[in-house]
Amino acid sequence: MAGSTFGKAFRVTTWGESHGPALGAVIDGCPPGLELDALDIQKDLDKRRPGKGGGESPRQEPDQVEILSGVFQGLTTGTPISLIIHNKDAQSKAYNHLQDIFRPGHGDLTYLKKYGIRDHRGGGRASARETAARVAAGAVARKLLTDNDIAVTAYTVALGKIATSKRNMDDIPKNRLCCPDLEAAVRMEELIDSVRKKGNSLGGIVEIQATGCPVGLGEPVFDKLDGVLAQALMSIGAVKGVEIGAGFKAAELLGSENNDAITPKGYRTNNAGGILAGISNGEPIIARVAVKPIPSISIEQDTLNLDNEPVKIRVGGRHDIAAIPRILPVCEAMACLTLADLLLRQKAIEN
Amino acid sequence: MAGSTFGKAFRVTTWGESHGPALGAVIDGCPPGLELDALDIQKDLDKRRPGKGGGESPRQEPDQVEILSGVFQGLTTGTPISLIIHNKDAQSKAYNHLQDIFRPGHGDLTYLKKYGIRDHRGGGRASARETAARVAAGAVARKLLTDNDIAVTAYTVALGKIATSKRNMDDIPKNRLCCPDLEAAVRMEELIDSVRKKGNSLGGIVEIQATGCPVGLGEPVFDKLDGVLAQALMSIGAVKGVEIGAGFKAAELLGSENNDAITPKGYRTNNAGGILAGISNGEPIIARVAVKPIPSISIEQDTLNLDNEPVKIRVGGRHDIAAIPRILPVCEAMACLTLADLLLRQKAIEN
Amino acid sequence: MAGSTFGKAFRVTTWGESHGPALGAVIDGCPPGLELDALDIQKDLDKRRPGKGGGESPRQEPDQVEILSGVFQGLTTGTPISLIIHNKDAQSKAYNHLQDIFRPGHGDLTYLKKYGIRDHRGGGRASARETAARVAAGAVARKLLTDNDIAVTAYTVALGKIATSKRNMDDIPKNRLCCPDLEAAVRMEELIDSVRKKGNSLGGIVEIQATGCPVGLGEPVFDKLDGVLAQALMSIGAVKGVEIGAGFKAAELLGSENNDAITPKGYRTNNAGGILAGISNGEPIIARVAVKPIPSISIEQDTLNLDNEPVKIRVGGRHDIAAIPRILPVCEAMACLTLADLLLRQKAIEN
Amino acid sequence: MAGSTFGKAFRVTTWGESHGPALGAVIDGCPPGLELDALDIQKDLDKRRPGKGGGESPRQEPDQVEILSGVFQGLTTGTPISLIIHNKDAQSKAYNHLQDIFRPGHGDLTYLKKYGIRDHRGGGRASARETAARVAAGAVARKLLTDNDIAVTAYTVALGKIATSKRNMDDIPKNRLCCPDLEAAVRMEELIDSVRKKGNSLGGIVEIQATGCPVGLGEPVFDKLDGVLAQALMSIGAVKGVEIGAGFKAAELLGSENNDAITPKGYRTNNAGGILAGISNGEPIIARVAVKPIPSISIEQDTLNLDNEPVKIRVGGRHDIAAIPRILPVCEAMACLTLADLLLRQKAIEN
Repeated sequence: MAGSTFGKAFRVTTWGESHGPALGAVIDGCPPGLELDALDIQKDLDKRRPGKGGGESPRQEPDQVEILSGVFQGLTTGTPISLIIHNKDAQSKAYNHLQDIFRPGHGDLTYLKKYGIRDHRGGGRASARETAARVAAGAVARKLLTDNDIAVTAYTVALGKIATSKRNMDDIPKNRLCCPDLEAAVRMEELIDSVRKKGNSLGGIVEIQATGCPVGLGEPVFDKLDGVLAQALMSIGAVKGVEIGAGFKAAELLGSENNDAITPKGYRTNNAGGILAGISNGEPIIARVAVKPIPSISIEQDTLNLDNEPVKIRVGGRHDIAAIPRILPVCEAMACLTLADLLLRQKAIEN
Repeated sequence: MAGSTFGKAFRVTTWGESHGPALGAVIDGCPPGLELDALDIQKDLDKRRPGKGGGESPRQEPDQVEILSGVFQGLTTGTPISLIIHNKDAQSKAYNHLQDIFRPGHGDLTYLKKYGIRDHRGGGRASARETAARVAAGAVARKLLTDNDIAVTAYTVALGKIATSKRNMDDIPKNRLCCPDLEAAVRMEELIDSVRKKGNSLGGIVEIQATGCPVGLGEPVFDKLDGVLAQALMSIGAVKGVEIGAGFKAAELLGSENNDAITPKGYRTNNAGGILAGISNGEPIIARVAVKPIPSISIEQDTLNLDNEPVKIRVGGRHDIAAIPRILPVCEAMACLTLADLLLRQKAIEN
Repeated sequence: MAGSTFGKAFRVTTWGESHGPALGAVIDGCPPGLELDALDIQKDLDKRRPGKGGGESPRQEPDQVEILSGVFQGLTTGTPISLIIHNKDAQSKAYNHLQDIFRPGHGDLTYLKKYGIRDHRGGGRASARETAARVAAGAVARKLLTDNDIAVTAYTVALGKIATSKRNMDDIPKNRLCCPDLEAAVRMEELIDSVRKKGNSLGGIVEIQATGCPVGLGEPVFDKLDGVLAQALMSIGAVKGVEIGAGFKAAELLGSENNDAITPKGYRTNNAGGILAGISNGEPIIARVAVKPIPSISIEQDTLNLDNEPVKIRVGGRHDIAAIPRILPVCEAMACLTLADLLLRQKAIEN
Repeated sequence: MAGSTFGKAFRVTTWGESHGPALGAVIDGCPPGLELDALDIQKDLDKRRPGKGGGESPRQEPDQVEILSGVFQGLTTGTPISLIIHNKDAQSKAYNHLQDIFRPGHGDLTYLKKYGIRDHRGGGRASARETAARVAAGAVARKLLTDNDIAVTAYTVALGKIATSKRNMDDIPKNRLCCPDLEAAVRMEELIDSVRKKGNSLGGIVEIQATGCPVGLGEPVFDKLDGVLAQALMSIGAVKGVEIGAGFKAAELLGSENNDAITPKGYRTNNAGGILAGISNGEPIIARVAVKPIPSISIEQDTLNLDNEPVKIRVGGRHDIAAIPRILPVCEAMACLTLADLLLRQKAIEN
């Protein structure tokens, strides 16, 4: 009943710590006959590579993935696909001083109290580095989705207090922050610079869109598409909120405003975010997640040491200023894993 | 791979349609020796009874629960607990006219396309009536939590555009809407009246708080406490968003503002909402959900019939104006089920 | 992590005690559009009805099943199918004297030590009566299999020391013991009579055959068809052994004797019992189970009471002499549940 | 819904093919604080190393295991334990001639028909080599059991038609076949020699004993200890039968013979094999498995090629004569995994 497995039909189990020899994922349930090459996976992994987050001297990890099983002559065989990424640039000694102290906003204390033991090096299993395995597995799910004409994209819709309501999807690849509003992206970069200088950090909001999804995905009543997607996204370390379609805004709307009228050409609006009664309705699936600011800041904070004594801490080390944009491929991966799983689950009951 | 089971250690499977003979839940994994009486369950069920939602002539269901197994001489035996609630006031004929038409905002169309067949009577399995079984099961989970000094409460923090930031917890039982701000509650009631007259409906925001939760609940990396809770809450039909602690607000904060400083007396603030790295940290667990307006409104809407022709629809019938307050015990139930499950899962690895 | 659920895609959860108000099963994952009527289920239930086991005054239970959900207008809807069987003839007082004493060969002591509490009335959950719910659920699985041209039959191949190697399948319905050898059946009946007079009981061997099974069912490496089938059958209370195809005999054969040669018309022999590498190979699936003698005998036995004192016990009450033939539909049900589950699991990965 | 995961609380997922770069296992749910070293695992792996099976020139694999995660400073951390074993001596070209032909007794044909694709090299995932990952994972489970004073031992009780009823447990380590009867072991070795010369192969029977098991393990009704153990053991490729305690012999006994009388000192006999009503009763747990003869023989057999034409085949290559004794550690591993899982599952409901 530990929680390192996600999915019921397309099942992914991840493993690995920030400063162990490697981390990886095992996918069980991927259909056979899918073309799969390590390069397919590498492409997604490269998007979340360290060095993209606006930090000063981030950890340099090639994050090169190897496929250890489940693929034969370029095709998946239906047997478990084992993926491994070796840790190359773990500088564990840099964490020695954190052995006896709990970083605010991190899982240091909760991990220790839960397990009675903690791998303090780089956050151990609680490190954002864990998400590399998710991205690798998600890339395999994405291959399955692509074969079914489903596309998943995540992009930045807010950084700190700079929000954009524009959705120029073509602009997403044109800026490092993957913001669908180039003008806002410029202001976001300026904000990052100013916050970095103060040793502080930033949060933001990511929107995830899945297009091409057939009607019928999602398993009432607990494994509704929005339910599973909410778990998938909320399980990402930095995420503190998930909303679908109109989301929290829906709480303020009247029924007549929120209902999406049905027309012969489809739904007139998409407040539902592509999901009705927990089942995809053929419209684009839209989810947004709230990303908290990176807790590792060089500003002095109050905390405790192992002896329960109050101490001050400044968390140096090699950290990003914001989880955005590196969290984008992680959000995509979790959405891909969710959809791939529900796609196979639906197939099991179809004729 | 259908989705009617929730939980891994404290596992609940629900069944039943709005207009079938009955609905119910089977709980497998409840520890033995727990005092349990049907009255314990009835208390929670009564809170979500029809007739509380501000509708004009709501369905009259006694919602009386029976325990069919798993309890002997007033104590749970460790074997499955089967709960049943008979449907008494289903007026299926009232739904005959909906057989050939899809209500906007409802799962009519998605259910039909997913399964190729649909029980149109009262929404079938997609009816909010399904949540009665959740509440019944949640009441059993609550007993387990109470024995472990954990208390779960849900209350209304917004209805339509009327939000309250007050948290006078003592006021919750003093108003029908369970709002911790009596003055806001008055305005909310006025709003309900005015919206009812227009045949429209309202959404809102519910906050759920769990106190007394020990440090250590939650299973990294996918079954984090916030991850599982997000699924639990988002799987409620009307919910379109879930946030933890500071939630979406956290996206706007700086790291220095969002981090909860650690002191010998505990955390100085609770932006984390009681969860760090997916594990409870001993502070109150705080979640909020966005509840969409009830889709059944008597205002005319555009939709399709079975022949894919555009038609107009006014949904009469016996409906509430807002899912609040009847959704409150459902939110509590899902939070209780989540915590009970994670409590047992943690026990499995403890000495 | 309790164990009342079987299957991953076609999932059955059973509940209920021998002397509670009812027992039942919830099936989640049954495909929609399947014709289903309570009579389909009743037919199988009637085969395991009390009064068939050669006991003198067995409990009289009509075992009438009701479908409470998941079926609309004669077709399954894809939502959970809830089945209930009310207990009508529980005579709990007859068990009062067993409250303080442990019956040899029964689960009285293990249940008490595991759970710290025990429903002693008729064995509670450990009663063979639990299998009524399996049979009901299995009948639904059988409907799915029949639609896929798969037939499952169980028959008696040994009772006590009387074994038959004949397989006159036409004779099975011609005798109460469902033995494919009428002459052996006569001797078995004589044996039952003689053993009954001595207050003793008998075991035997049941063979289960599934024909029409497509190639490809079974999920390597742990959920092989034979693996899952072994759990399914061994989980029946009275079963102490399971073998596939040549079974224990295979241990004595040479490779050249045991291998089934492959010809253009199929396999020349079927020592594999229709399963190769855990996957169905298109030949009839053959399994056999060893059924232990009923532990309730009126011959005096040594045991303990609650105070750990040695006492003598004679178990009277309304008991069968042998689990055969009433166990036959239970074996069929478990085989049907296994195949239905693996059939859907295979569909999830097929194009 | 693929089947590469075993266990619910102590969960193992294995991956890897015979001729891929590596194979491995991920354990999720191992309690924290357990002392674990690669050497602990190596010890068990060495017992199943190629070169022990009486074959002439078996594959030489060092089978050296690495721990990639979940262990910190010699202790398990509660996070997933990833184990990897690199394939060093795969000679894939030796299998080229098998690309177009189906070996009798193997999964060649069923794998191809199930998945539509097959890694023919050394049997791919269907190879007995897959069991190396089980043994590695089982060794971790064994550590947990040892800490709980539970010991698991497997030994040979029959090879071909040579059976032994002696149980001189001290003799097990004294002979290569791990037979508790030295005199029988000598005759077994002679039999192996004679069968090898004829290019044929042998099956046998393995008995597994677990001592020190507390009362209470096993989860009625489907996940009974014997049910789960049956799946665990039957899922080993070569196993065609599983029996518990008196097993198939019980079918011939009278109730008065088969019941184990209960005395203040424990059960007088152990026909139940340590399991009553699916729950361990404190006596030694006894299971036996039927092991079929190795299907790879150099005697000519009839089979088909990819074009469905009848052809003759002699399977040369590097094969054992009997799965015994190399299967012994595999049986132990599966028993260890079963007990570790049920141990943790029981803890979840205990006070």
